[in-house]
Formats: sequence, structure tokens, C-alpha cells
Amino acid sequence: MTGACAGAGVARVPIARVAGARATAAQDELSVEAPLDIRVAVHGGDAAPRSLAVTMRTPGDDVELATGFLVSEGVIAAAGDLVAVAQVGANAVQAVLHPGVRFDPGWFDRHSFVSSACGACGKRLIEAVRVNGVHRVAAGTPRIDPDVVHALPARLRAAQSAFLRTGGIHASGLFDVSGRLLLLREDVGRHNALDKLIGAELRAGGIPARDRLLLVSGRVGFELVQKAAMAGIPALAAVGAPSSMAVDLARAADITLLGFLRDGRFNVYTDAGRLG
Amino acid sequence: MTGACAGAGVARVPIARVAGARATAAQDELSVEAPLDIRVAVHGGDAAPRSLAVTMRTPGDDVELATGFLVSEGVIAAAGDLVAVAQVGANAVQAVLHPGVRFDPGWFDRHSFVSSACGACGKRLIEAVRVNGVHRVAAGTPRIDPDVVHALPARLRAAQSAFLRTGGIHASGLFDVSGRLLLLREDVGRHNALDKLIGAELRAGGIPARDRLLLVSGRVGFELVQKAAMAGIPALAAVGAPSSMAVDLARAADITLLGFLRDGRFNVYTDAGRLG
Repeated sequence: MTGACAGAGVARVPIARVAGARATAAQDELSVEAPLDIRVAVHGGDAAPRSLAVTMRTPGDDVELATGFLVSEGVIAAAGDLVAVAQVGANAVQAVLHPGVRFDPGWFDRHSFVSSACGACGKRLIEAVRVNGVHRVAAGTPRIDPDVVHALPARLRAAQSAFLRTGGIHASGLFDVSGRLLLLREDVGRHNALDKLIGAELRAGGIPARDRLLLVSGRVGFELVQKAAMAGIPALAAVGAPSSMAVDLARAADITLLGFLRDGRFNVYTDAGRLG
Repeated sequence: MTGACAGAGVARVPIARVAGARATAAQDELSVEAPLDIRVAVHGGDAAPRSLAVTMRTPGDDVELATGFLVSEGVIAAAGDLVAVAQVGANAVQAVLHPGVRFDPGWFDRHSFVSSACGACGKRLIEAVRVNGVHRVAAGTPRIDPDVVHALPARLRAAQSAFLRTGGIHASGLFDVSGRLLLLREDVGRHNALDKLIGAELRAGGIPARDRLLLVSGRVGFELVQKAAMAGIPALAAVGAPSSMAVDLARAADITLLGFLRDGRFNVYTDAGRLG
């Protein structure tokens, strides 16, 4: 595989840098990307572990990624739902579910909320998140101070590792309501960065993540809001733009959704009673 | 669902714009995102159409998206492999495969290359693309002029519709070797934008897309290079950064991969004998 490892999640490769017509040999650093197989079994069950999903991720925090994925997809809701979860190879994590967890083996053929809900209707997809989300967010709490929001991007950037070198990694940061950064996770995939963060919080006893603000580095589609909803996170801010279904789901799930957060400005797509 | 439709793929919503401590009511335009169910059946077969994948996409060009997805995933290689493909609802497309197409029903449980290849090894994933890719790219052709490359981003931007308004949409553009833009597709998902482009080219008889340059608006992970490889596209340039596996696959598939293409500069990650 490409290059020598230059630290967690970064590979160094020889390139040519072209400026105008002039090319010069150089070294560049890339975000590492590799498949992770997330395997699941039920404790005491007869069935061997089966692959629930394979995601292209930046290696590192793999157990957290698998754990967070299971939260985001509604398979587990608390750390006690897992009897065990462990790395079982460079690119595989195996989770053993508590026998009390209601687990539908049909999951193995669906892989995700999006492919499990009927494709015919976005409303049904939003309803599926509402029905499966056990950590309901309460509208109105916590109160959010706009000054705190403005300060988040600089704090996330200051804590990021690989981002500035490769320009090719996404970050998710979890903050308390005073704007203190509690947790940061990075990945080539924006979804993976958030799953890693949620998995780490679950393992630390922090889910549902009430009284927390989440900041993501890129755009916000439906699936990022879904993950926030499943983890009980009341407020989600993004450096980039939301999609229409991200706004629809945030409204349905009483999540405050802020976009284009940069340079002392942001847009409020859903307030949920927390700002004004 | 959110807002009134303000043109293809754009929804208008009321927001508050916050600058410092001051909030003002405003209108914002969002990229529309909704699920698309891609259903497949074999012509003359007994089985009813089944869902192969559900993707969150910007509505529009849905038949092209489904067609391009089937090319990217190695299900079809030519327009003649489809007996029919049609929209069968607002959020569903149905493709009927020619009975001569070798189609493994196990596909319905895998959904994608990434989840079908063993998660244990990135090398195996790259090998799967090489084995399944029928449109091999020949190293060395076409020759690529750096001056042409520098000109591509401005031409893509000039042709984009929803991008500037929402800031939340990805674009893929196909150019000839003189730098003329032949085809542009946009979507909230970078993968979907490229699948739409490939599907449109297949329907127009343009696949394999030899002697073509592809420009994508964001970063380049493994899956975008995979799609280029399956469509026989010899050169892929990106405004953003590639991942390590994107570079590995480009090298294995003799694809020229350029990154950070902006402001008169770019990086050459793989040359494949086409530039210097």
C-alpha cells in the first residue's frame, strides 16, 4: 500500500507539484483509507459472527467506529448492550451483542438505515429515525450562546492533527455548552469521524450526549443528523451547508442545526428553542 | 418536505443569519436530498425486481444515476446490457438486465464493491476492481497538456448551476483532451454526481470514455477512482485531496490522478505516462 506511515492515519508519497508549466518533485502526505469490516454476533447464539457493514475509513479508533456505527444505526443504545467488542484483525472489528438486545438478522442484508427504509419516501426515512431513536432530545435545552458557537471552529482546528497536512480529512468535535472541546475524532469519511466520536462517548458513559454541541467540518446530509439524533445530541453545527433532508430531520427530532459556521457568522436552519 | 422547489435540486427555506450577536431573518437555498431506490430484475427471469441499493441523492437524472451505478459496480458494461431502465416512482428506478448479463443474485445482499470484497485487505479490494473492470485504461494515452488541466476548474464552475447558491453540492465534469467541457452532473453526494455522469455517457455511447479527462469538485477517495476505472476514464483531477487508497488504485489501474487543482497549481499523484 501507499507510502510509509508518517503518523496515525497519514501516508507519505512522492509526487510532482505543478505550478503553471513547471513541475518539481516533492513529498505529499495523504489521509490513509482502508476498509473496515464490522462484524456482529449475538452472545450465546448459534450463528457465527457476520459482516454487518464494510466502511472505507482512516485506520485508528476502529473499536470506537464500530461501536458508534451500531449506535447510529439503532442496533445498540448503551454500553451494556455489548458483551464484547474487539479488533479481530487489521481491518475488522467484532461486536458481540447482549442476548437481550432485539437484533433482527435481516440487518445483515440491509447494512444501513438508508437501505433499510423504503426508498420511496423521505418522510418514512425520517419516521424510522424517530421510531428507532431511543435517546430523544428535549426541545429548548440546553440554551446555546451565539458567542460560544462562533468560537467552536477555531477550537476544532487547533486540536486537529492530520487535517492541515493532508487537507483531506474530516473532523467531528464534541463541546460542552461553555464551548470547551471534550472530544475530537478525524477520518477521511465524515460519517466515520462522527461514528468514532459517538462510539468513544458511549464507551465513556456519555451517551445520550445531552447538554452537548457537535461541530462537523464539512457539509451536513441526512445521515449526519441521523447519527446525532441516535446519540441524543441536541445541537449540530457545520462549517458547510446542510441538505434539505438534514433540515427536515433536525426539525422532526428537535435538533438545533447551524450551517456555514465560519468567520463570525452562521445560519440557523432549525432553532428548537435553544438560541433566540 | 422542506421548502418550495426553487429549480432543479434546490429548496428554499427560511433561516436566521447570525453575524456576531445580531440575527436577521433571511431565505436560504439548500441542495435537495432524497433517497433513490435502485431496483434490478433480469429480463425473462422469474424473480420480481429487487432493491440493489438505496442512495441519498439530489433528485434529477435518476435514470442516469442508476445506470451509472450499475456500471461503477460492474453489473453492466454497455448500454446493450440493459433491456430497459425507467423511473418507476418519484424515488425509484427500475433496471431490467439483458438475460446474457452474468448477474449474481448475491449482489442484493452486498450493495457495493466495498461491502462485497473482503474487508480484511485493501489489496484485495483493488484486485476486485482490476478483475471486474472490463474497460481497461491504456497507460500513456491520451497525452495531457498541463495548460489544459489548469483551465478545467474555471470551466466547471462556470457551468455549474446550484453550486454557488447552496454551497452544498458536488460536481463531476467530463472534458475532452483540449479542455472542452462535454458533460456536467451535480449532486449532494460526490459519488452520485459521478454515477450520473457515467450513466449519461453510457446512454450516449461514450463508455469506455477513452481520451477524456474527469474533474471532480471535492476530495477523491477509493470509490471515485473505482468508478473512473470501471468507466475506462484515463485521467481524474480533483479540486481537493486524494486518499491513500485512491492513489493505490489509480496506480494499479493506469489512471492519471491529479489533486489540489486550483489557482494554477496541481499535484501529480500518478502520472501513468501521460504528462511529463
